[in-house]
Amino acid sequence: MSQNWWQNACQPINLAVREQALERQRELTKPAGSLGRLEQVAVELAGLQGKLKPGVRQVWIAIFAGDHGVVAEGVSAYPQVVTRQMLQNFVGGGAAISVLARQLGAQLEVVDLGTVDLTLELAGVRHLRIGAGTANFAQVPAMTTEQGRLALQAGRESALRARDAGAQLFIGGEMGIGNTASASAVASALLKCTPGELTGPGTGLNAAGVEHKTRVIERALLTHAALADDPLEQLLCFGGFEIAALVGAYLACAQQGIVVLVDGFICTVAALVATRINPGCRAWLLFGHRGAEPGHQRVLEALQAQPLLELGLRLGEGSGAALAVPLLRMACDLHGQMATFAEAAVADRDT
Amino acid sequence: MSQNWWQNACQPINLAVREQALERQRELTKPAGSLGRLEQVAVELAGLQGKLKPGVRQVWIAIFAGDHGVVAEGVSAYPQVVTRQMLQNFVGGGAAISVLARQLGAQLEVVDLGTVDLTLELAGVRHLRIGAGTANFAQVPAMTTEQGRLALQAGRESALRARDAGAQLFIGGEMGIGNTASASAVASALLKCTPGELTGPGTGLNAAGVEHKTRVIERALLTHAALADDPLEQLLCFGGFEIAALVGAYLACAQQGIVVLVDGFICTVAALVATRINPGCRAWLLFGHRGAEPGHQRVLEALQAQPLLELGLRLGEGSGAALAVPLLRMACDLHGQMATFAEAAVADRDT
Repeated sequence: MSQNWWQNACQPINLAVREQALERQRELTKPAGSLGRLEQVAVELAGLQGKLKPGVRQVWIAIFAGDHGVVAEGVSAYPQVVTRQMLQNFVGGGAAISVLARQLGAQLEVVDLGTVDLTLELAGVRHLRIGAGTANFAQVPAMTTEQGRLALQAGRESALRARDAGAQLFIGGEMGIGNTASASAVASALLKCTPGELTGPGTGLNAAGVEHKTRVIERALLTHAALADDPLEQLLCFGGFEIAALVGAYLACAQQGIVVLVDGFICTVAALVATRINPGCRAWLLFGHRGAEPGHQRVLEALQAQPLLELGLRLGEGSGAALAVPLLRMACDLHGQMATFAEAAVADRDT
Repeated sequence: MSQNWWQNACQPINLAVREQALERQRELTKPAGSLGRLEQVAVELAGLQGKLKPGVRQVWIAIFAGDHGVVAEGVSAYPQVVTRQMLQNFVGGGAAISVLARQLGAQLEVVDLGTVDLTLELAGVRHLRIGAGTANFAQVPAMTTEQGRLALQAGRESALRARDAGAQLFIGGEMGIGNTASASAVASALLKCTPGELTGPGTGLNAAGVEHKTRVIERALLTHAALADDPLEQLLCFGGFEIAALVGAYLACAQQGIVVLVDGFICTVAALVATRINPGCRAWLLFGHRGAEPGHQRVLEALQAQPLLELGLRLGEGSGAALAVPLLRMACDLHGQMATFAEAAVADRDT
């Protein structure tokens, strides 16, 4: 591993296979273009996987969790103890993503980057204990350079385990009370937006709560006004351990040639950071859903991303991406299994 | 069977179970409402199926096919022979809906209501031979009262077979070169719209083709200006055998208590006719996707319908509804299998 592994080149797209897949789509027994987004997705997957008939049977879902010092400012509707309670729920099988992973036959791994209780020990959870949560970014940078490096590396190691397990698709999820505040701050810094444009209710703040959260982020941006205009520095200053792990995972997936399906607001902010650090990763990122958090749309636009679903979700945990997996699978099945006009002896429009 | 079976009462919703399901959603380990549309769908299915934990494992897909006399006016991008070639493709396993039905583990039945070749005999297809396609509605009513009654009954019989097979979800698909012209004419008559608002490219007409198709429908509406303002009469005059079969199937499903997942433009027009004939059926209709055909949005609005997907599809065959089935299944799994706050010992926001 080089010192700055995250700047290593990402895998190229196989343009020849992509072109063959496009040609195959034209030959299938349906009016040209009539499967809409599913045709585009199948062709895109073919180019990324370098296979005329791509597939996403093997899905790896990694949930990254961490606590956030900024909750001391009162920016969440839920108490901080929920972060570690949900870690138990993920491995216990009762969380939304646990149900979805079972249903999809996906491998689910749960990584605790650092919650406030550093003695926490849950069977089935990888405890990395990078810190007892991040520091309160309203006052000081959320993490040290060394903590940031460890969190990026934790994401990379999950991607490498996914590769070793034969994963064809990587989904990162997140859990961390306070992490929409962190994501909004990171995105505001990167996109040079006022926090009001990117701050929303998260798990369920009322209007006064959103207003307060916005003020906290505004003050934090002023506090760190001397920060370098650098995506990694901005991530360290305002991010969470789990957000940094997502960034590392996305970059490593692109370097390893594993397709990523990005989840909601927080994951999309991590994707934005990843593309700012290493633009070559963008091609490897598909987007699962457009969430209810108001800032999500703005960050998707910055990435020129078109999610597959829009169902008013605002849960996190990778759930929106998991819900889109059957669409990718069916896109691959249609692409791979439909008959061509010649095979089925069906007249095309030119006949 | 009464003379007008389609006016018989539809099954009522079980409001007590619906309320219990709503309560269960509030207790699951997630912020209230954070699963968006999936929560609503699970609650709706609970009320319809009368089960606190509903399910849609058993799916019945019926493809109704028929030819259209109006193709003589040059309203389609594809030759009429494609209708019967696609019948072969459906049972041969190479069509989009064949691939999707396999993937979903759904029962697929293919019903030929009447194509121009009345000697057609394909293994695996139910040939009903109501007529050698409909008459050209640009000149005369598309079908006789007796033909309409037979087509409605064919749809009903498919719904009864679905019931007998234990189906928890019914999807109707359609195939018939020229049938977007027929659907546009029916919808224009029902909604008292100018055909320009409801006519689009279908399988792929260019702008001049759409213009011509619109003129054909405008003239047809004038030709039949004396037609009674009655949904059944309008269906007989402008509809196709397969559209009438869909109407019959939707009405029978609602009477039998089988949830329907409606596909694209043509199926949505059939749903509109069904609700105009017997408004009690509306509650039993869920909507799979918002298609690319411009008139679809207008008809969805008339039904106050919110489809689950929007992927730019314009294929028909029930494909858009089939693609939404995994979302319904995952909505049921989440509703049925997630832990409650009490079970998982997770703090709710009020604690």
